[in-house]
This record gives sequence, C-alpha cells and structure tokens, in this order.
Amino acid sequence: MKLNILGCNSATPKINSYPTAQVLEIKNHMFLIDCGEGTQVQLRKMKIKFNRIKHIFISHLHGDHYFGLVGLISTFRLLTRETELHIYAPKGLKEVITLQMKLSQSWTNFPLYFHELTSKTSELIYEDEQVEVHTIPLDHRVYTNGFLFKEKPGERKLDMNAILNEDIDVAYYRKLKQGGDVPDNDGNLIKNDSVTKPPTPAKSYAFCSDTKYSEQILPIIDKATLLYHESTFLEKHKHLCDQTKHSTAIQAATIAKKAEVNTLLLGHYSTRYFDLNEFKEEAKTVFDNVLLAKDGKVIEI
Amino acid sequence: MKLNILGCNSATPKINSYPTAQVLEIKNHMFLIDCGEGTQVQLRKMKIKFNRIKHIFISHLHGDHYFGLVGLISTFRLLTRETELHIYAPKGLKEVITLQMKLSQSWTNFPLYFHELTSKTSELIYEDEQVEVHTIPLDHRVYTNGFLFKEKPGERKLDMNAILNEDIDVAYYRKLKQGGDVPDNDGNLIKNDSVTKPPTPAKSYAFCSDTKYSEQILPIIDKATLLYHESTFLEKHKHLCDQTKHSTAIQAATIAKKAEVNTLLLGHYSTRYFDLNEFKEEAKTVFDNVLLAKDGKVIEI
Repeated sequence: MKLNILGCNSATPKINSYPTAQVLEIKNHMFLIDCGEGTQVQLRKMKIKFNRIKHIFISHLHGDHYFGLVGLISTFRLLTRETELHIYAPKGLKEVITLQMKLSQSWTNFPLYFHELTSKTSELIYEDEQVEVHTIPLDHRVYTNGFLFKEKPGERKLDMNAILNEDIDVAYYRKLKQGGDVPDNDGNLIKNDSVTKPPTPAKSYAFCSDTKYSEQILPIIDKATLLYHESTFLEKHKHLCDQTKHSTAIQAATIAKKAEVNTLLLGHYSTRYFDLNEFKEEAKTVFDNVLLAKDGKVIEI
Repeated sequence: MKLNILGCNSATPKINSYPTAQVLEIKNHMFLIDCGEGTQVQLRKMKIKFNRIKHIFISHLHGDHYFGLVGLISTFRLLTRETELHIYAPKGLKEVITLQMKLSQSWTNFPLYFHELTSKTSELIYEDEQVEVHTIPLDHRVYTNGFLFKEKPGERKLDMNAILNEDIDVAYYRKLKQGGDVPDNDGNLIKNDSVTKPPTPAKSYAFCSDTKYSEQILPIIDKATLLYHESTFLEKHKHLCDQTKHSTAIQAATIAKKAEVNTLLLGHYSTRYFDLNEFKEEAKTVFDNVLLAKDGKVIEI
C-alpha cells in the first residue's frame, strides 16, 4: 500500500499548495480520495495515470474537497476515456456534476456511476476479493464520511521444510493455504498451524477529514495501520474547533492513541500557519508515530 | 489599460499552465474575464487583490472557462468579503453556483448578483461614466459571448496659449472641455477647435474566445486597440475547426486585419502543441502586429 498526497491544505488558496486530494494504491487499485481544485494538475505532476483511477471517494461537499472533480471528469471525456468510473459521495454531487455536463452539452463517453451516500452509520460501500472500503461517519458542519480501506487477510504461508518432513501430497497445498488441516500420505491428520505460517498482516488505511474530535469513530478505525486525521488547528486556536467542527493536532493524536493505530498522518492545516512542524510537535506530546502530510509526498504503508 | 493573462490554454490540463482567465485593468476597474480552474491561485501569484474584483465576465459554460469560479466565490466568502460582486454569464451559471452553495451550506456574506445572458445580438451589459462593456456574440458549440470593453471618450484638452490669447473667462473652461463654443470677454463667439485639442483617443479591448471564424463580429470589434482572438489550432489542423468550432491562428489574423485592429493577441492553444511561436509565425503572414498570450504576462494597452 502506498499513499500519494496530492494536496493537504484547507480551504483558502495558497500558491504552490493544494486542497485535499490523495491517491491510495492498494492491491492494484488507485483510489482517489477527495478532489480539491487543481487535483488533475497534481495527478499529472505525480505521474499518476488518469486511466488507472476507477474509484473516487468524496468525503463531503465543501469545495476544498471536491471542486476539482468536475474538471477531472471533463478531462477524462476529452481524453476519450472508455474505462468506467465510480464515484462514492454524499447525495447531491450527482446533481452538481450532471447539471454542469448538461450546460456544456458534454456527456461522458465512458460509464459514470454515482454511489450516493446518506447513511449515518458505517457501511460497506466497496468490496472485491482483496479489498473492502467502509465509511467512517464523521462529525462536521455538513454530512461527512471518512473512509476505511482494508486489505482482506491473505492466505497462510506454507512452511516447506515442515511440509516435506510430514510427507503431505502437493494436492493439499491449496487447502493448507486456506487454513485447513490435511492428511499425510499415511492418513494421519496434520494440524494446519504445524506446517504453515500466518499470512502477512492485512493493512488498513483510515482517512478522516474533516471532523471535530469524536470517539465514536474509534471502533471503526481500531488498530489501523495508518490513520489520516485532520488537524486544522494548533492548540492555541482550539477554541475555533467547536464552531468550525475541526480538530487540533493534539485531538488527532488522542484519537490515534485511543484507536491504537500504528502511524498518524496529519493534514488539512489552516492556511494561517507557516511552520507546520508545530503540528508534529504538539501531536507527539500524545502519540509517538506522527507524519506530516505534504503536497507531493508518497507514504509507504 | 492593462491586461493580465492568468491562463491561456485550452481544456486539458498541463503542469504549470492554466485555462482561460484574464484580468483587465481599465479606469480603476479590475474586470475578471473567464475563470478556468486554478484562477484563484493565479490571482495570488500575480498579486491581484481579490477585493478589487467586482465584475466577472464569463464567455461560456465550457469548464475551461468557468470551473474556477465557484472556488473563487467560496474563497471570497471565507475571507469575509463584504464588497458586492457582479457576474455576467450565460443563463445556467446561477443555478450551478447556488446549487453548490446550498449543498455546502455556505451562503455568501456579500451581495452576489448574477446577470444572466441570453441575447444572440450584441448588447450593452455594463456602463458607468468612463467605461462600457458590450457582448460580442460568438459562434461556438454552446451559447458564447465575447466582450468588448471600451473607454468612453475623454474631455477635450485646453490649449492654454490659444485660450489666453483669445481672452476667455475661466468660467467657460468646463464648457470648452465638453466641446462647446464660448464667447470671449468682448462677446465674440470662439470656435471650440481653435482653442482646444482632441481628447486622448479612447481605447478598447475585444475578447473573443471561443469561436469559429466569423465575420459577423467585425462591426462590433472594428478598430479595437487590442483584439484577443482564440487560435486553438495551427494551419495543419484547420480541418478540426468546423467540428470543434474553433479557429486557427491565420483565421484570427484575418479577423484582426479585416477589423483593422491595432494589435492581435493569440491564445487558447490546443495542448497538442509545444512550440507556440508557430502560432505567431502563421498569424504574421496575414497581420503584422501579433502578440502571444502567456500565463503571467502583463500587456499594456
């Protein structure tokens, strides 16, 4: 798994920095998460092939999280894309995009599916053989979801020394990988865990933007490998969190600690700040393993 | 008059180049003309104060000419703008913008006026003591207007030597500036043009994007000081003009020549081209005074 940060600023524009957009590479997928203005240019800069993006997840309908989407869809059309595109977003986005297509008389030449979200409890919105995506209901000024991207557990690994020792027929290897007990050539039942090793631990990425501090998300993001949690403010502006329904770096770190995640990634910094290291320093007073999102950064998960 | 080129590319994104947006400085106004994605960042880069923009003119509802508008309006709101804003654009834009405001529950805290355009003949859409703005109906795939920005003629200039010679009372200076004949102190009528000089010639800027070659615009843009005319294609791709309703550099130059404008400014280059000088070279075979639009360029008119 690999996370590409295309943009990580909050709403007002800055030269050479972009609002929220990320691309998560997971099991051969390229999932685009949020799509602020300028995302298509950032995709070009980071050399991410447009055609590999087949699923787009939009957390909420504040502009700094989706104003780049209609331009990206238009560009897909101009580049004569044929690959289908799925968009998971709060109800309302379909109306915005189709209205703009109608006005420009520019319908897509590729299948475009909107999966409009309205549930206030976590739901499974995407699943295939290797990956699951769940919503993480957040507490913001408008209807907002984070997203939990989870690898499914892989197969158990064969311990070839033990297997050859036990004299197990090759026909049983598949069943062993799936965790079953199998007979040896003499008919004795061999316990699975005596001849296999656990699969590589499944990884997960929890994306939480934008939200006020909310412990309701803890069960959903529990022990995530990487947690992105917004940190719009430093502690000195904590009083702004209630009204704006945003979080501080310390609040993000508290969530990371309580959910026992492996690593915390901060972002969605208010443009009032110039030294982003202060976010890291404040978060580290609560939780050790902290990274700062930065435009153009690629994070191995 | 001064023209700031914020972006001049056509639809598909390029790194470090922007779709159409310009700011015209004319008689203390800052008129924003078209507003492609990323315009707000370009305004910042060119140090144009957001609050000085009170009038925005949108030529048509293809994305590369207006997808940056909703983000700019949102930013105005976040910066607690109070100054009123007028938007002149094809019918439909108001619905797009207000739908997005509704979904984000973010109404502006400043007066926002939409002047929706539907006329297929040229009309006067803005006027004050010093400036007029007229639409230039263009021939494109969707309803499109260019805009003609005209200074009003200034006052005649007093020829002080002649005036003192003729012994004219100071009370008549105002009338002289306005072109009237006045009496001298002996009661003889003095012809205006014997004691005044013509005003500084009024300048005009004609913005024409996007359009196929159309001589119908000639009477409107006649003798403009500066004509911006789109040149999406070079001559080798002229066959694409009919279907896309765009123009070549030579067609733009032909319009410039027939309208007897002073200077031609080319732009809206297809992203398939790398050497933009070819546009200038081709245009110059028809019309001498050719400039190339370039992001960040400032043109004195």
